[in-house]
Amino acid sequence: MFQQRLARALICGLALGTVATADAQDAAEAGKITAVDEAFDAALSRKDIAALDAAWAHDASVTAVHPASKTVIVGWEAVRKSWEGAFETFAELAVTLKEPNVRVVHHTAWVVGVETVRGRLASGASVEFAALTTNIYEKRGERWLMVHHQASRAPQ
Amino acid sequence: MFQQRLARALICGLALGTVATADAQDAAEAGKITAVDEAFDAALSRKDIAALDAAWAHDASVTAVHPASKTVIVGWEAVRKSWEGAFETFAELAVTLKEPNVRVVHHTAWVVGVETVRGRLASGASVEFAALTTNIYEKRGERWLMVHHQASRAPQ
Repeated sequence: MFQQRLARALICGLALGTVATADAQDAAEAGKITAVDEAFDAALSRKDIAALDAAWAHDASVTAVHPASKTVIVGWEAVRKSWEGAFETFAELAVTLKEPNVRVVHHTAWVVGVETVRGRLASGASVEFAALTTNIYEKRGERWLMVHHQASRAPQ
Repeated sequence: MFQQRLARALICGLALGTVATADAQDAAEAGKITAVDEAFDAALSRKDIAALDAAWAHDASVTAVHPASKTVIVGWEAVRKSWEGAFETFAELAVTLKEPNVRVVHHTAWVVGVETVRGRLASGASVEFAALTTNIYEKRGERWLMVHHQASRAPQ
């Protein structure tokens, strides 16, 4: 049984050429994820809903938690609406992630770090706060798409 | 090029027998993840550091964010120390997760929901609050191990 599994794994590994190089490939993907995550923050900072449309998977299972969220936002339609709401709240917005911790496991990746959120509300007031952030991505074909985003205000 | 890739993917799929059944397998794993995540909350509620030792991957890359965290805790040694600190802070602790959103993609899974944290501090004061939570697991062999935990207080 074990030998049969091993043989199958080897056939699979040889077919894809991934047995020895899986970790190296994950490491190479980590650089891509860092760039994808920076592009996400840049899209937020431009309040660019079209860029978010392209960055997210449009699944019923995607989830988001914003600093003001009291519960989990579930499904792309609701998540998109929540971003539209955020973009209405902020007249100006600048989001950057310090010291991202990036991990890639095959077709899933996540980034954990501390976001700095700076902006000006529609009311005119300036805001700046730190948000502890977890972003999860899935690789679909050649593209990494966001499937979960949590940004929660750090305690004062 | 595309045909070559398709052929390789088919060989791999046939070898592992996973092409048609991957989604069904992920769905079956989702039930396991729900149980694993409930066991994690039960371990917290018992303040059972040995159970956390068994629940977490002991990697340098694992990460945690607690309700009081101002930054990301990185690496198993620091994460374990943070749990020991939490268990010293709380004389009694009870953690449950409402309406978990569970997603499994091959050897990675995550659970997103709202934790209810109830307890009594070492000082005697009672506490109760909601925490927005993201837990990430990796499958190592036959076991699902926690690799990231974020629980951040919901805004009042």
